[in-house]
This record gives sequence, C-alpha cells and structure tokens, in this order.
Amino acid sequence: MLDSLDKDALARLCGKALFNHDSASAALGINIAEVTPGHATASMEVRPEMVNGLDICHGGLIFTLADTTFALACNSHNMVAYAMGCHIEYLRPALKGDHLTARATEMDRTRNTGSYVVSVANQDDKIIAVFHGRSSNRGQPLITHANLNEFMEDND
Amino acid sequence: MLDSLDKDALARLCGKALFNHDSASAALGINIAEVTPGHATASMEVRPEMVNGLDICHGGLIFTLADTTFALACNSHNMVAYAMGCHIEYLRPALKGDHLTARATEMDRTRNTGSYVVSVANQDDKIIAVFHGRSSNRGQPLITHANLNEFMEDND
Amino acid sequence: MLDSLDKDALARLCGKALFNHDSASAALGINIAEVTPGHATASMEVRPEMVNGLDICHGGLIFTLADTTFALACNSHNMVAYAMGCHIEYLRPALKGDHLTARATEMDRTRNTGSYVVSVANQDDKIIAVFHGRSSNRGQPLITHANLNEFMEDND
Amino acid sequence: MLDSLDKDALARLCGKALFNHDSASAALGINIAEVTPGHATASMEVRPEMVNGLDICHGGLIFTLADTTFALACNSHNMVAYAMGCHIEYLRPALKGDHLTARATEMDRTRNTGSYVVSVANQDDKIIAVFHGRSSNRGQPLITHANLNEFMEDND
Repeated sequence: MLDSLDKDALARLCGKALFNHDSASAALGINIAEVTPGHATASMEVRPEMVNGLDICHGGLIFTLADTTFALACNSHNMVAYAMGCHIEYLRPALKGDHLTARATEMDRTRNTGSYVVSVANQDDKIIAVFHGRSSNRGQPLITHANLNEFMEDND
Repeated sequence: MLDSLDKDALARLCGKALFNHDSASAALGINIAEVTPGHATASMEVRPEMVNGLDICHGGLIFTLADTTFALACNSHNMVAYAMGCHIEYLRPALKGDHLTARATEMDRTRNTGSYVVSVANQDDKIIAVFHGRSSNRGQPLITHANLNEFMEDND
Repeated sequence: MLDSLDKDALARLCGKALFNHDSASAALGINIAEVTPGHATASMEVRPEMVNGLDICHGGLIFTLADTTFALACNSHNMVAYAMGCHIEYLRPALKGDHLTARATEMDRTRNTGSYVVSVANQDDKIIAVFHGRSSNRGQPLITHANLNEFMEDND
Repeated sequence: MLDSLDKDALARLCGKALFNHDSASAALGINIAEVTPGHATASMEVRPEMVNGLDICHGGLIFTLADTTFALACNSHNMVAYAMGCHIEYLRPALKGDHLTARATEMDRTRNTGSYVVSVANQDDKIIAVFHGRSSNRGQPLITHANLNEFMEDND
C-alpha cells in the first residue's frame, strides 16, 4: 500500500501526518494549501488576537506560519526532519485582517540536512517576510506500514 | 512625573506598556520576570497544547518566547523599537512540562539599530535555544506624558 | 546620457562601478558573470591558498563570494545599498579546484530595505551554500552625471 | 604526553593546530590572542587593500575574522568541529586602519553540535558586528598521539 504511492501522494500524506499532531498550528488557524516533494504552501489570517495595540501582527506568529510551512516541506520526503535553526527577515508589517500565504522551497538536500527558503506574502502579493530554515534528519521514516492506516482513514 | 523616573523604573514601565498590548504573549502564558535597560528576562511553561505528537514543544513557540523577551529588552530605553530580523538555533528539544526562561542581553546599540542575544534555558539550566534579534527604531518614545497615566494606574 | 540608459544597462554599469572599488573581491579572483535589476551572478575558483589542510575551502571565502554577489544585486537599481546582516548555511564542502557560481535573487524591496537569497553551486550544480542578505539604502544614487564618465570610459 | 595536558594547554594547542593550516586567515594578518576551552580572541588590522572606495572594510573580511575566531572556540575541546551555518549583523562600519578584536563565547554544546556568539569591536570598544556560529562535530579528535609532535615542535 505504502509502496504503491507516488512521490506526490506520499508528500501530501506526510503533510497530513505532520499536521495531525500540530495543535499549535491548528490553534492559529493555519491551513495547508499544498504539499509536494520539497515544497509546501500554507496560509493564515491575521486575527484580532494576533495583533498588538498598533494592529500589527506579532512577529512570532508570522514566524510560526513560516516555520510550519518549512516543516511541511522538509518532511515531504517521508523522512522525519527537525528544525536546527531558522532565520527570518521582516520586510513589511502584517495588519489585522491580512491573509498571509507562506511558500516553502527546498534549495537543496544532502543525506542528513536540507536548506529551505520560505516567503510570506499578503493578499496583495507583497512580501511580508523571508524565512530560511535548516533541517536535520536521522534516516527515520515519518509514515510506515504500521501507522499508514491512521492517516489514510482520516483521508476519507 | 515621567522625568522623575530613573532608568530602571522607566525600563520596567516600558515592559509594562509593551506587554499590555501583547495578547499573543499573554495567551501563551509568558511572564515577565525582569526588565532593566537593555536586558529582560521572561518565562513560559510548555503546556500540553504547545507540543506535537512526540511531546516536543513547537519551535515557533520557543521563538515567540525569545522574541517577546527581545522586544522587552530593545524597547527598554523608552524608544519604540521594531524587530527587523531574527535568528534562532535550536540546541535541545523542550518537552511538555518544561519551564523555560529567556534572558535577553543588548550587545550594542547605535542611533537607529540594536543587536540582542537571547538564551532560552530549561529548568535544569540547559540551553534549549540561542536567539539573535536586530532592532530598528525611528526616534519615537514609547511612553509619553500623554499615555503615562495609563500604565501608572495599572501599577497599583 | 545617464537618463538614456535602460534598466539593464544601468544595472551592468552599477556592477562595474561597485567592482572597480572592490580590491578584496578582485584579490580572490571573483568574476562578475551578469548583473540585471535585482539579480547578479559571479564566480570564483577555489585556489590552493584558499583551502585548509584538508583541502576544504575556508568558509569565509565562500561567504565573501556570496556577499559580493549580494552587493551587486542590491546595488543594481542605482541606489547605494549597504549590507545590514547576512546569514549563510553550508550544505557541502567546496574543494580545491572547484569552480563556484553564486546567483543572487531579490526577494523583495521596500523604500529603504531589501532581502536577497544567494545560492552558491559547484561545477556539478550541487549547492554548496545558501546565503541570505539584508540591505539598507538611504536614497543616494551610486552613479551620477558627475561620476558616469569614469565607468563609461572603462567600458571601451 | 597528550594525556598530561590540562584543558587550557590543550585548547591552546588546538588553536595552534587549526591555525597552522589556515593560510586564508594568515594572509589577512589575523592574530590569535587567546584560546581557552570554549572561548577565543583574535585580532586583525583593516589594511588599505581591505577597504572599498569609501575606506570601509569589506563585510566578507569582518565575517572571516569572526568566523576564524568561532572556529578556534569550537575546536578548543580537541574535537574536530565544522561550521554548519553563520549569521552576522553589522552595526557600524570598520574603517581603514581600525584595529578589530573578535571575542568568541560558547553558549552551549551538546554531543554533536554547539552554538557560539562572537562580538567584533574596534579600538574604541565599539561593537562593529555581532556573529553567531553553529558547529557540528562527528567525534573525531583534532590532536592525537600521532600528530602531537608536529604542533609541539612548532611550540619552541
């Protein structure tokens, strides 16, 4: 069953497996738009409780959106990957009500590490932040024959 | 009234002013332990909803604790300061129930920018993450004669 | 004369102006391959004196190649831009004799800052390093009517 | 012989071993001031060929000074350590003739990785740049009984 999945289907399933256990991302209302091998897109709306007194979104929440999208991309090859370090540059403020979309791209991957760039844009396609993530993996699969059913059933 | 405050009292008041408007930090249960000029200490407990399926704290939340502590330190001189960019390195996982303490130190500050290092340690004094923040300010005070009363009243 | 140049010609001229004064890059044998608005490509060969006892290129020199390419890209709009901060991730070692190519891409630019991603690849198109640069500009042109002739003459 | 060295003597010897093979640092005139376990101090003068047309030191060379000092600190435990990634923030320009001193401090170290902060100051004790380095080690000693004599002889 697992072996019959092509790379795109496996990437989607990895995203599902990861997100199932990520209550922090769910609490922020982050939605996965797409996961393909080495890539991911996710979005989040800036809700009233996410801003400070100036109606500007908290930087930690923009980071969390980017970080979640990075995690989806670096786990898309069905190898458990951890964040070793991240870097974020803020270019413009995100305001209350903004709809943010994060797009993660894999720059390259070696046997045990990978490098990812994530852009976060608002509804006007203006870049809010640029994020850079470094992943580490130890050769352990995310989805196995043992836990496959858990995610497939959810798929219905 | 504002002029009669010494630098330490002003730093504490700046922390209070900043935190008053930071509902995201409050929602995570972040507590300010201390704010002095150029320095800040804050703490957070890793609650069940902050972890993934492996009981490991979401990196975005560790970032948010560090980021909040950085904001307290770079706003402690009563000049509104924004985060321009941040960098975080994860050294060890934070687990459910861990009590995390972030300590921000100002490396140096020029007329319109500053550089801060934040360490995040667990209850065993092991470093979980090291964070680096770059701030920008545009010469605008955080607390003025006009808004001073708002924070002083809260002080009672 | 200056006004008659299109954006691509101006970008090339900016690259020339910047490189004319960059003796550090010249000493490393860095060559500009191309400068277009917001983009630049440059290359460098890993010479014997650039490596340590293990024949691995010094990380500072890979950084310098990426940094130079970033500078070409962020100055390509004929506005003097400075590096505020940079981040580099090393993915693979560069070896003696390797031919490295750095490609800088502008992620976005606001009125006074910009964000750039630079990839550094070897002759086998394997990514050696990923670099992220943040620029600052203060609205000052790089090439003016006064200094234009200096670079045009060199052009012959 | 190797076993009779205390940690400080071993750290100094590691610095010597590393520097012996670092022709790039030597070419820049970088001097080691001190290496102790987890710490290092090194200095460099900004020479005429290190500056651009505005007499400002090339950022890549400030990075290289910081990177060399980081390498000395992370290799001071007699375990070969590699740079995985680095981050630098520039706070002030370094000018021709400035005498720069870089000080590296180990934030913490796990079994296979470490985190280091390096400050770079000028002769007036103003911070020029703040650098953050992440190291990786694979459990291989830098100095062994086999190569010890090479460095001890140089010591005379």
